Amino acid sequence: MLIESKIGILGGGQLCRMLCMAGASWNLNIKVMDSKECPASSVCNELVVGNITEYQDVLDFGRTVDVLTLEIENVNIEALEQLEKEGVKIFPKAHTLRIIQDKGLQKQFYKNNSIPSSEFKLFSTKLELEEFLSTQKTFVPFVQKSRIGGYDGRGVELIKSPDDFFKILDCPSLIEDLVEIDKELSVIIAKNPSEQISYYPAALMKFDQQTNLVNTVITPSQINNETEQKAQELAINIVNQLDFVGILSVEMFLTKTGQLLVNEIAPRTHNSGHHTIEGAVTSQFEQQLRAILDLPLGDTSFLKPAGMLNIVGKVGDQNKINIKDLQELLKIPNIHLHLYGKKESRPGRKMGHITVLGESIEEIEALFKKLNNELSKTSSK
Amino acid sequence: MLIESKIGILGGGQLCRMLCMAGASWNLNIKVMDSKECPASSVCNELVVGNITEYQDVLDFGRTVDVLTLEIENVNIEALEQLEKEGVKIFPKAHTLRIIQDKGLQKQFYKNNSIPSSEFKLFSTKLELEEFLSTQKTFVPFVQKSRIGGYDGRGVELIKSPDDFFKILDCPSLIEDLVEIDKELSVIIAKNPSEQISYYPAALMKFDQQTNLVNTVITPSQINNETEQKAQELAINIVNQLDFVGILSVEMFLTKTGQLLVNEIAPRTHNSGHHTIEGAVTSQFEQQLRAILDLPLGDTSFLKPAGMLNIVGKVGDQNKINIKDLQELLKIPNIHLHLYGKKESRPGRKMGHITVLGESIEEIEALFKKLNNELSKTSSK
Repeated sequence: MLIESKIGILGGGQLCRMLCMAGASWNLNIKVMDSKECPASSVCNELVVGNITEYQDVLDFGRTVDVLTLEIENVNIEALEQLEKEGVKIFPKAHTLRIIQDKGLQKQFYKNNSIPSSEFKLFSTKLELEEFLSTQKTFVPFVQKSRIGGYDGRGVELIKSPDDFFKILDCPSLIEDLVEIDKELSVIIAKNPSEQISYYPAALMKFDQQTNLVNTVITPSQINNETEQKAQELAINIVNQLDFVGILSVEMFLTKTGQLLVNEIAPRTHNSGHHTIEGAVTSQFEQQLRAILDLPLGDTSFLKPAGMLNIVGKVGDQNKINIKDLQELLKIPNIHLHLYGKKESRPGRKMGHITVLGESIEEIEALFKKLNNELSKTSSK
Repeated sequence: MLIESKIGILGGGQLCRMLCMAGASWNLNIKVMDSKECPASSVCNELVVGNITEYQDVLDFGRTVDVLTLEIENVNIEALEQLEKEGVKIFPKAHTLRIIQDKGLQKQFYKNNSIPSSEFKLFSTKLELEEFLSTQKTFVPFVQKSRIGGYDGRGVELIKSPDDFFKILDCPSLIEDLVEIDKELSVIIAKNPSEQISYYPAALMKFDQQTNLVNTVITPSQINNETEQKAQELAINIVNQLDFVGILSVEMFLTKTGQLLVNEIAPRTHNSGHHTIEGAVTSQFEQQLRAILDLPLGDTSFLKPAGMLNIVGKVGDQNKINIKDLQELLKIPNIHLHLYGKKESRPGRKMGHITVLGESIEEIEALFKKLNNELSKTSSK
């Protein structure tokens, strides 16, 4: 049986890989544009080698599919606008990507729509920011974010004191008040063209302080019902105000004073939703497919408390797991291993993840400890 | 991260397809031998076009992998024996396949090892069987099974009375007493080279009376604890007596008098285990990978009661699902759709399946009804 739509995905990293695997269950016809040995290359129906930031590459690729989606927001939007004119269904829509791609426009969007987010200022260059700081010495500490292209902890600098000014990025950027964070949360929400909306319960993210990468994710997020409801309302508000169709990840701060602030959004699946593959009735990847194909959205409830631990490249990593190490790892019950097939390991690079289900948060956290212990042995060889 | 073993799979149908998908989660390097457009072709790392019953094809293929397994028992065993001599790890082992491949030897094995199974007689030809029947007129009703090559209801004839004698197959066959069946059960069991054994709870299979194909499967199987334990002991007994390594499906009859009889075994994953993908902690496909790679076997417990409904080709089937039909189907909550990517639909051909999880057997059976209703609409177009 064949579902007739031909689906295109821009970007072939691990998010696309897992999207293709969800699509394979339905025997969807999926083609991907990225480089030759990208993680999705071995699981998609067709790989088109091309550059997703190049107008002509995206245009040519988009013309061969019925529905176009993405796994990363840094794509050529002009090409998407042209393809929309030509009748290709593109979710998320080009005009919403314009806002999301530029963190300055994102912040402006929150402000215009009364969506709580930390205070910010925009700067075109490093010089402009330095001039501002020379007159506003009391402004530190703050966070500087590159307006365009930041990803996985890159393009973000924490400036704690004037001693950190040397770290300031020289690019169009925004600076934000540093808020006192109690928890970092994520709500993944989907909307289909028929305007059905569905969201997952909030996930609790813990970050590696050095790399600024997501380290672990747990659902439920251990916030009270009122905060959970506010987080969901925020996410709904954003998809509606943005006219968003597809799957959207909303990262939020819960401040020490109990306030919810939107940190940033991503117009795609997210690292904070990988545990939906085994933990939830519908995975975030199947949900993206349902959303872009205008199918009824799936049940987002969790079967059990679930957690996710990233496997990150380390210095000296051989990028190989021998069977002995794997034997030790897989002795730990109730874990689900995912490796992304990246050809090269680099320190800080996301190489895979492990999902664990448990009866309680405590059980999951105990499993994380065991896993960290095993993984440190594995990758030190 | 790469797990270094190169895995070969003989046969590229839906069982292989789902095995490859389980392997993709671990980024395993999997190559498959079958025809060009087989269901596994779009999800394996490499497809080698060849005939799994041909000595040279299997030999050449096996020499390029570290571990060889299969999705169908009708393979060239002489080639496997040669490859074993050359040091290729083959699970299941060739000498166990010799017994399983021939239903006559299978029956003899049960008899020799005091494994309960229905009474049987062996015949070399149709003529020999007819001569026997002419002297034993009271022997009807019985079941005739081809000794070699039967699959998915083929190679099996139910002879209710002398009027059915025209249906008798002309091949080496066995005939079995027709037993009065209360339930048909399946236990899927795995054993790794380190002799760890793990089995799933028994599944209840219901068959289509016309096609003799599995129609639905449910776990738990609604048998009492004593019968459940006996079924498990039978399965353990078989893997141990057979010196079996890999994953083995044991189909059993529970007779109206409460006796458990082994019907037949398959040295691979089985249609009665498809609901382990979403229903159990470890899927039967991941379990096969764990077994053949000598990894610790995974947890076989079910998260919830789970059921599976086959999607079978019908007369006039277009082999296409349009989005409208899919929208109706996917409105049903808690279902998981699997389509196998077969290029052609034929009446009685397994085209896909749907897994449903529920809080109770009743809920699952109600979902089966809804699904049958939707599917009959879909495929009648």
